[in-house]
Amino acid sequence: MQICRVKGNVWATRKEETLKGQKFLIVTRIDENQSEIGPPFVAVDNIGAGVGELVIVTAGSSARKASDESLPVDAAVVGIIDSMDVDLSS
Amino acid sequence: MQICRVKGNVWATRKEETLKGQKFLIVTRIDENQSEIGPPFVAVDNIGAGVGELVIVTAGSSARKASDESLPVDAAVVGIIDSMDVDLSS
Amino acid sequence: MQICRVKGNVWATRKEETLKGQKFLIVTRIDENQSEIGPPFVAVDNIGAGVGELVIVTAGSSARKASDESLPVDAAVVGIIDSMDVDLSS
Amino acid sequence: MQICRVKGNVWATRKEETLKGQKFLIVTRIDENQSEIGPPFVAVDNIGAGVGELVIVTAGSSARKASDESLPVDAAVVGIIDSMDVDLSS
Amino acid sequence: MQICRVKGNVWATRKEETLKGQKFLIVTRIDENQSEIGPPFVAVDNIGAGVGELVIVTAGSSARKASDESLPVDAAVVGIIDSMDVDLSS
Repeated sequence: MQICRVKGNVWATRKEETLKGQKFLIVTRIDENQSEIGPPFVAVDNIGAGVGELVIVTAGSSARKASDESLPVDAAVVGIIDSMDVDLSS
Repeated sequence: MQICRVKGNVWATRKEETLKGQKFLIVTRIDENQSEIGPPFVAVDNIGAGVGELVIVTAGSSARKASDESLPVDAAVVGIIDSMDVDLSS
Repeated sequence: MQICRVKGNVWATRKEETLKGQKFLIVTRIDENQSEIGPPFVAVDNIGAGVGELVIVTAGSSARKASDESLPVDAAVVGIIDSMDVDLSS
Repeated sequence: MQICRVKGNVWATRKEETLKGQKFLIVTRIDENQSEIGPPFVAVDNIGAGVGELVIVTAGSSARKASDESLPVDAAVVGIIDSMDVDLSS
Repeated sequence: MQICRVKGNVWATRKEETLKGQKFLIVTRIDENQSEIGPPFVAVDNIGAGVGELVIVTAGSSARKASDESLPVDAAVVGIIDSMDVDLSS
């Protein structure tokens, strides 16, 4: 799973019927210094993450396990990070 | 899901039988400045996106959830973006 | 789906039993200028693409939908491109 | 599967219900010189890997085969490396 | 599928129970000049590839079709390359 920062929201009135009612967030992956890397992308969110929070994002088919198996989504917020403990010595 | 710009169309007369009647769009991913990044690719479209529009594209097996589970597609337009609200402060 | 050029063929006598009789092509992804990008890779082909042709390649689990669900393949040629119409203004 | 080094832990109180009780590790991929490459990411661990150890990480839908098919995870530690024997001559 | 060179072996005594008895190889992807690109990774091998050989590697969920659907593997050797015929003119 990727470590991402929530950057904002995206709205799409015209969309797949099955996606109606889903909340979409714009997120960007971060590196070990919490610097943003790569372009922003869209993840579905069912746990209430807010802008600025660090989150765990699951990609690919497993994103459907965090929403509904029938949804055409390939990224989902699955956790809001409280803290990280990373060894910088190795 | 990736944020992409619709760039054009592609035609292929000789194709997998199951893909007949499907509409294919050429799209390119964009970054936070809406600059295009990476090479263009092809996504199936069932919601009527037009050239120049910003769209949400689902990749991988989940693209089949936006068309038909039996289709050999790995990217699908699932939403046409009305607006985005991105926090640039963090 | 990726836009690729067919570059050649690859032969493997010793292979997974289920792949016997499958035709493998070497393909390389192209960018908006039709320049090749990235290393060549192997795609299964059931529609008769030839060397030099531009093709649409589906990757991942969806490649099995273009061949047989039980085959260990992760890329398949699903269309031979007749023409592309790309907007360069945006 | 990727060869990674375990870098630390991540905690998320608010998360998908199905992920409760799962152990998450922060890992970073390494190259042939065991230098870390790319940003850290999160993998679920059911075999007890510790910080500093080299591990084999399976990504994508197959990560669910190392935990539970219903979990929204896309990376899992599947082995702790004892030794590697790599030919540097070719 | 990727074209890779077999670089060596990796041993992991502590691993997912279902992976016991599987043979793991370290492989590296090659480009059109057969130069190695990218970091080495691990693929399961059921067809007896040896160090130095060029092989075809299937990634993602399809790798399970070359071993066992229940295994947590995301890369598998599916063919040992006898020869390649690549057009360099285009």
